[in-house]
Amino acid sequence: MTSREACAARDAADPLAGMRRLFALERVDAEGVIYLDGNSLGVLPRSAPERLRVVAEDEWGAGLIRSWNSAGWITLGERIAAKIARVIGADAGDVVVADSTSVNLYKVLSAAMAVSGSGDAARTRIVSERTNFPTDLYIADTLARERGFELVLVDEPAIPAALQDPRVAILMLTHVNYRTGFMHDMAAVTRRAHAAGALVIWDLAHSAGAVPVQLHGEPAEPVEPADFAVGCGYKYLNGGPGAPAFAWAHPRHTAWMDHTGWRQPLSGWLGHAAPFAFTPDYQPAAGMARFVCGTPPVLSLAALECGVDTVLAAEAVGGMAAIREKSVALTDLFIDLVEQRCAGFDLSLVSPRAAAERGSQVSLAHPTDGYAIMQALIARGVIGDFRAPDILRFGFTPLYTRYVDVWDAVERMRTVLESGEWRDPRHAVRAAVT
Amino acid sequence: MTSREACAARDAADPLAGMRRLFALERVDAEGVIYLDGNSLGVLPRSAPERLRVVAEDEWGAGLIRSWNSAGWITLGERIAAKIARVIGADAGDVVVADSTSVNLYKVLSAAMAVSGSGDAARTRIVSERTNFPTDLYIADTLARERGFELVLVDEPAIPAALQDPRVAILMLTHVNYRTGFMHDMAAVTRRAHAAGALVIWDLAHSAGAVPVQLHGEPAEPVEPADFAVGCGYKYLNGGPGAPAFAWAHPRHTAWMDHTGWRQPLSGWLGHAAPFAFTPDYQPAAGMARFVCGTPPVLSLAALECGVDTVLAAEAVGGMAAIREKSVALTDLFIDLVEQRCAGFDLSLVSPRAAAERGSQVSLAHPTDGYAIMQALIARGVIGDFRAPDILRFGFTPLYTRYVDVWDAVERMRTVLESGEWRDPRHAVRAAVT
Repeated sequence: MTSREACAARDAADPLAGMRRLFALERVDAEGVIYLDGNSLGVLPRSAPERLRVVAEDEWGAGLIRSWNSAGWITLGERIAAKIARVIGADAGDVVVADSTSVNLYKVLSAAMAVSGSGDAARTRIVSERTNFPTDLYIADTLARERGFELVLVDEPAIPAALQDPRVAILMLTHVNYRTGFMHDMAAVTRRAHAAGALVIWDLAHSAGAVPVQLHGEPAEPVEPADFAVGCGYKYLNGGPGAPAFAWAHPRHTAWMDHTGWRQPLSGWLGHAAPFAFTPDYQPAAGMARFVCGTPPVLSLAALECGVDTVLAAEAVGGMAAIREKSVALTDLFIDLVEQRCAGFDLSLVSPRAAAERGSQVSLAHPTDGYAIMQALIARGVIGDFRAPDILRFGFTPLYTRYVDVWDAVERMRTVLESGEWRDPRHAVRAAVT
Repeated sequence: MTSREACAARDAADPLAGMRRLFALERVDAEGVIYLDGNSLGVLPRSAPERLRVVAEDEWGAGLIRSWNSAGWITLGERIAAKIARVIGADAGDVVVADSTSVNLYKVLSAAMAVSGSGDAARTRIVSERTNFPTDLYIADTLARERGFELVLVDEPAIPAALQDPRVAILMLTHVNYRTGFMHDMAAVTRRAHAAGALVIWDLAHSAGAVPVQLHGEPAEPVEPADFAVGCGYKYLNGGPGAPAFAWAHPRHTAWMDHTGWRQPLSGWLGHAAPFAFTPDYQPAAGMARFVCGTPPVLSLAALECGVDTVLAAEAVGGMAAIREKSVALTDLFIDLVEQRCAGFDLSLVSPRAAAERGSQVSLAHPTDGYAIMQALIARGVIGDFRAPDILRFGFTPLYTRYVDVWDAVERMRTVLESGEWRDPRHAVRAAVT
């Protein structure tokens, strides 16, 4: 049995403790808010407002059109992509930053269909998880219908069996499930898919910056390299609301694209081999650069860079390994404390008990009143979120979440549950965004 | 023959003169810069830096995830779309703000193919202009190949003849040509295309905020309503570098989509009928809302709203009619002065002499040294841009460009040409972005 003092002692000994100063948390702290929703929107990096001021006033305002060159706007996406590559175990040139996760998934799924079809046209099945994040399923379903593919949804334990079907072309999974926090063993699943002749697309929305990812590169222990990946800038990368997203392809696939001249469907001008030649004919840029489409939203990109920089700052104090170690400790502590201090209120653990199968999130279920309980918790300054029909989600961002925050959050949850204050009708009022 | 004094007098009498105060031009003015490139990147609205500070520090930093509701982030795109609708003669609900122009063109072109094919499957030809902005041609070419359509490029005078081919499904044009400034008669071209059984997609990148546009709605004189349109936020709408773009469809086409359940290809979660139900099955939102895809980049959206507001502010002093009147006056003045003061230096007028055929831009050509002349002009503080092989482009934004700016720009051009200073080798050095 731990105590708040023991939690404070762990914070004092935490090698990542200094990272919290990289975030603008004064007003959040002054409000008494414990923010456990960095899996939905990461906290504001302290550097971002000044950076936005510089981009707006100096670069846009005074530099005007010249800033595409003089302020490096034209290579800003590339620069951020190289930074994200360090977070996801990829080579810099194999990542692009552009558009949204949904749009990027459309591109890489198109690519995976083409690569797969070039080897075996009889493979026309995309397998995914029924509980994958809906936008991934929506994008895949529409694209599958259009191209004569079939999207097959299974539950996680049925994935190995589904892969045995010789029609499977692509396995499309989110590394860490947005509802449950369940984390796939990326290397093992990729190896299994490859053995079955399928390609794998990983959505890293809830992984990048939260758990170590090794897509490719030269790790100490070689891993089975993935085929394609996409991910989100505004969760654990702290890039701001709706931050641009990223995409990755294994170089053997971009080499195939270079060889065949394959185009991604959103063949916009900035993915052209020579965008400023303004030729009427499209020639895809070499390698991954063809996955860029239109002019990037510079202001949102600038904020994203500040966010990614917060994750890279941790490289000096242990990097993703240290982040993972603390993430496991925070989530273990939260689970332990909920079980100890909030027993008897019908809460059950949805996330895996085994840390190895869990991302940086803990989901609890309440059979009837999850929404109202979450609203009452938010009213008490513990911000998580609710996912229908019954899930209370709590995200833990090791760069700024403290052990005492975990302690205090669970104590407030106990107060909410014991007092029954969540039964107040105002907590049942649904907001537009849940 | 006019004079600088006469130009100053026109500025003093200009009903739009007060609009210039809506822009942060102090540093530009102090630097002695005359900015004639608002057709590439509009000037910073004075309100934008503070708005960005509020969105970053208050909404993101303090409000965190709650700001999707409390700060209205979730409806921000809709709010801006309703404002853009006023600028382009459309109904509020028929416009969405999302993604880039290229991505939006992909969506509406897919829609046009579907609508067209539903009536006559033999129509599989997309006609466009050879000198249309390349990204439009790239997007159309790739999509055409994928769907068994054919992209046919013609020169502007050949459009009527090309429409006579019964295979033409879609006429895809940019209202104001990015190179020449040539402006199509939107209603007449639309009428001709409809008479030939084709649909029309208009790219309003160089129109929205620059010239009056009447896509639909209830004008005093009824116009032939267009079918689809897309446009850009960062030119005459002053929305900032890479600002999100917009898309429009005529309600008869979205009614067809509602009736048939048609999906746009980028069927992301925010275009779902109930995005926060997180159901595995995609159900498109009714009407135009299905054209939204992923989570919007809120910071860039916030700046875009500041930009669109500068255009709406002109509604109090004559609106788009006043903007057009001044635009014609500025461009006429520029052409007259160039012809009078810069004669004998091999410059020729590329833009139409007739104001009715011209957008808010004037393009000049120089047979051999356009690039170096533009660089020398920029060194003298007149910022236009160069488009290979021979075009010097000058954009005129009536909200902040003054008659004296036109006078001074031409005088500096004369100095550059008379002195031969553009022959300095440094002016031949090509930048990454031209």
